Amino acid sequence: MSRLVMKFGGTSVANIERIRNVARHVKREVDAGHEVAVVVSAMSGKTNELVAWCTEASPMHDAREYDAVVASGEQVTSGLLAIVLQSMGIQARSWQGWQIPIKTSDAHASARIEDIDGSEIIKRFQDRKEVAVIAGFQGIDPRTNRITTLGRGGSDTSAVAIAAAVKADRCDIYTDVDGVYTTDPRIVPRARRLEKIAFEEMLEMASLGAKVMQVRSIELAMVHRVRVFVRSSFDKPEDIDPMSNHPPGTLICDEEEIVEQQVVTGIAYSKDEAQISIRRVQDKPGVAAAIFGPLAESNINVDMIVQNVSEDGLTTDITFTVPAADYQRACDILEKARPAVGYDKLDGANDVAKVSVIGIGMRSHAGVAAKAFRALADRGINIRAISTSEIKFSLLIDADAAELAVRRLHSLYGLDK
Amino acid sequence: MSRLVMKFGGTSVANIERIRNVARHVKREVDAGHEVAVVVSAMSGKTNELVAWCTEASPMHDAREYDAVVASGEQVTSGLLAIVLQSMGIQARSWQGWQIPIKTSDAHASARIEDIDGSEIIKRFQDRKEVAVIAGFQGIDPRTNRITTLGRGGSDTSAVAIAAAVKADRCDIYTDVDGVYTTDPRIVPRARRLEKIAFEEMLEMASLGAKVMQVRSIELAMVHRVRVFVRSSFDKPEDIDPMSNHPPGTLICDEEEIVEQQVVTGIAYSKDEAQISIRRVQDKPGVAAAIFGPLAESNINVDMIVQNVSEDGLTTDITFTVPAADYQRACDILEKARPAVGYDKLDGANDVAKVSVIGIGMRSHAGVAAKAFRALADRGINIRAISTSEIKFSLLIDADAAELAVRRLHSLYGLDK
Repeated sequence: MSRLVMKFGGTSVANIERIRNVARHVKREVDAGHEVAVVVSAMSGKTNELVAWCTEASPMHDAREYDAVVASGEQVTSGLLAIVLQSMGIQARSWQGWQIPIKTSDAHASARIEDIDGSEIIKRFQDRKEVAVIAGFQGIDPRTNRITTLGRGGSDTSAVAIAAAVKADRCDIYTDVDGVYTTDPRIVPRARRLEKIAFEEMLEMASLGAKVMQVRSIELAMVHRVRVFVRSSFDKPEDIDPMSNHPPGTLICDEEEIVEQQVVTGIAYSKDEAQISIRRVQDKPGVAAAIFGPLAESNINVDMIVQNVSEDGLTTDITFTVPAADYQRACDILEKARPAVGYDKLDGANDVAKVSVIGIGMRSHAGVAAKAFRALADRGINIRAISTSEIKFSLLIDADAAELAVRRLHSLYGLDK
Repeated sequence: MSRLVMKFGGTSVANIERIRNVARHVKREVDAGHEVAVVVSAMSGKTNELVAWCTEASPMHDAREYDAVVASGEQVTSGLLAIVLQSMGIQARSWQGWQIPIKTSDAHASARIEDIDGSEIIKRFQDRKEVAVIAGFQGIDPRTNRITTLGRGGSDTSAVAIAAAVKADRCDIYTDVDGVYTTDPRIVPRARRLEKIAFEEMLEMASLGAKVMQVRSIELAMVHRVRVFVRSSFDKPEDIDPMSNHPPGTLICDEEEIVEQQVVTGIAYSKDEAQISIRRVQDKPGVAAAIFGPLAESNINVDMIVQNVSEDGLTTDITFTVPAADYQRACDILEKARPAVGYDKLDGANDVAKVSVIGIGMRSHAGVAAKAFRALADRGINIRAISTSEIKFSLLIDADAAELAVRRLHSLYGLDK
């Protein structure tokens, strides 16, 4: 017997027929003797409708009222799923964020979960074999007794946090893909589904553009060591053996659980990048702060900072990337900061792409990145900038070479099936 | 300065444009210096949609889950109205039933309000001039921490109960009619809007078929002496002088507040009645219990019981009415009870109507009913049964004579304008 959290997104609960399908997935696990908590999103389209009403009511709406309005979507699905489960003879009860309670920060519309009391849900697992159907995406600020929401994709975070709170053996994320792939299968048809991926790797994959799960939910899973299993909600519920150790999907887990660790696990890429280079910056203390301080204050995320050691010891070139959407704003801010920073000129490009190679195995293998530089050079792909960490390296290249580079690296590191 | 509760139904909040119109009504009262709590229903159509989902999920759905689902409709409108009010520069905050809290019984889907703590709302009136926007129709069962709903039309009850809890000077019910009329204007074009009506009279008018307000809400108003003002939500918000003592509408109030009390206040009628007569019932103790006990157990509402004193002292005839929808079911139950009751035969009709004449003034005036008997006889209208109370009398007549009777009585008691 295991204790499971099962999470279903908006398309999986879009109407009563689909909710019935979700219920059959739940029934399979209950029949196998597992203790189950289900986390649901709003019916697809509902959150958008509610958000549109708030915006029509006032473009500058109060986030507390916005939260009260949009949280109603998950409230509806949780109640409906509980009804369907009961009609199948399964003990079930719905839970809103405030009922458990899921305590969050007061950052309405993007609150962070602070504490979840899982005791009542565990008690009902044990006393009544009752399935808890929990409204995702929401919580309560205990200081004001107001409903909060976690921001888009927050139901993943709810699911992982609840899994941690009830000490679940696994958190199953049912989504519209059947797992995590070595890279985007739309670009590389030979991409393989990973059977397992380590938390750290998944975090890099997610934040670098693989859109399977929300980044925050993976961080949370890593901190609390919650094993997360990504699987498809389109699978026929009855076709899956609940006792199988290998249902189709990808397990996100501790690296120790991955016996045969590959050097490279996956290739991620992002085309929403822009590069900015500041030429002949005075090479003196405080200059980095003068550049990046104003950008941070404007909430612009800076990535891949590369600074060359200057030849003359007087000036240097600094290159970094920002999200493409912030490119113009970043340039304007830097122009304004020119007197304080002291530099010669600014240049940049927003037709660039970032390709990243990820793998925990890199820690113990030298020369992994060097292989990539050679391979891309052979194909005539120019590398604009490089940044590395323990378990990944990222290359900034021209956007129109991105697909070619991803395919080349995918086969270079033996990921093709 | 007064303290007001303003209640708006589903058609008044059907979309953002109409919610804006509601907000202008609220602004008028706030600008006049009043302290305001607003109670809102769900957008029209929303509750039906949510109920339909519950029924599709399972026809025998759990009432606790049903309540969690349907209460979301009012949650949405309360948040949206708060947003619109804020955008007009008015301090406002939404409140769900569980936040105040509005404590109710555990009778899910038709819960009764047990207690409301109005202290926080009053504090915010005083400290911040904040408008409370309250989700109607719902509360919480404090024993289980579950959302409850009050049943259809429950927002009227919410409004009156909140008015009592915050000690409001008046509870304004904005509806699709501009007040309470002496009778149904569709039948009697000369029907007049009443400026005032006593609680007791309104209770009779409402339970006898005038569909302006839910009966329970009027009972509650009477018990707590909450003055209720019924007015139209179609009035242009800016056309009404908030300081006027006579805006268009009807005040439901204590009889002492009605200086010129008429003998008759209004005529109500109902065509949804059926008559059942039990012939030659044994006239012995316990026979009434044997008849009405089984009907009560089947939740059939019995009204207008008439029993004649028997000539021979051995048998009697008993006539009563039931809702037309329950006619056949009632007959079946009585057929089954025949051995226990001991009667000769059953007859009945479901093409009957009940016409009622209501007025507190009847208490001090003799012969009010006798005038009616004469007037209807003059028109050839046969009276099948009569029942009387202190402040009303009801006549059971053939359904096709109902309109004629209502018109005749309306003019007989000087109610024509």
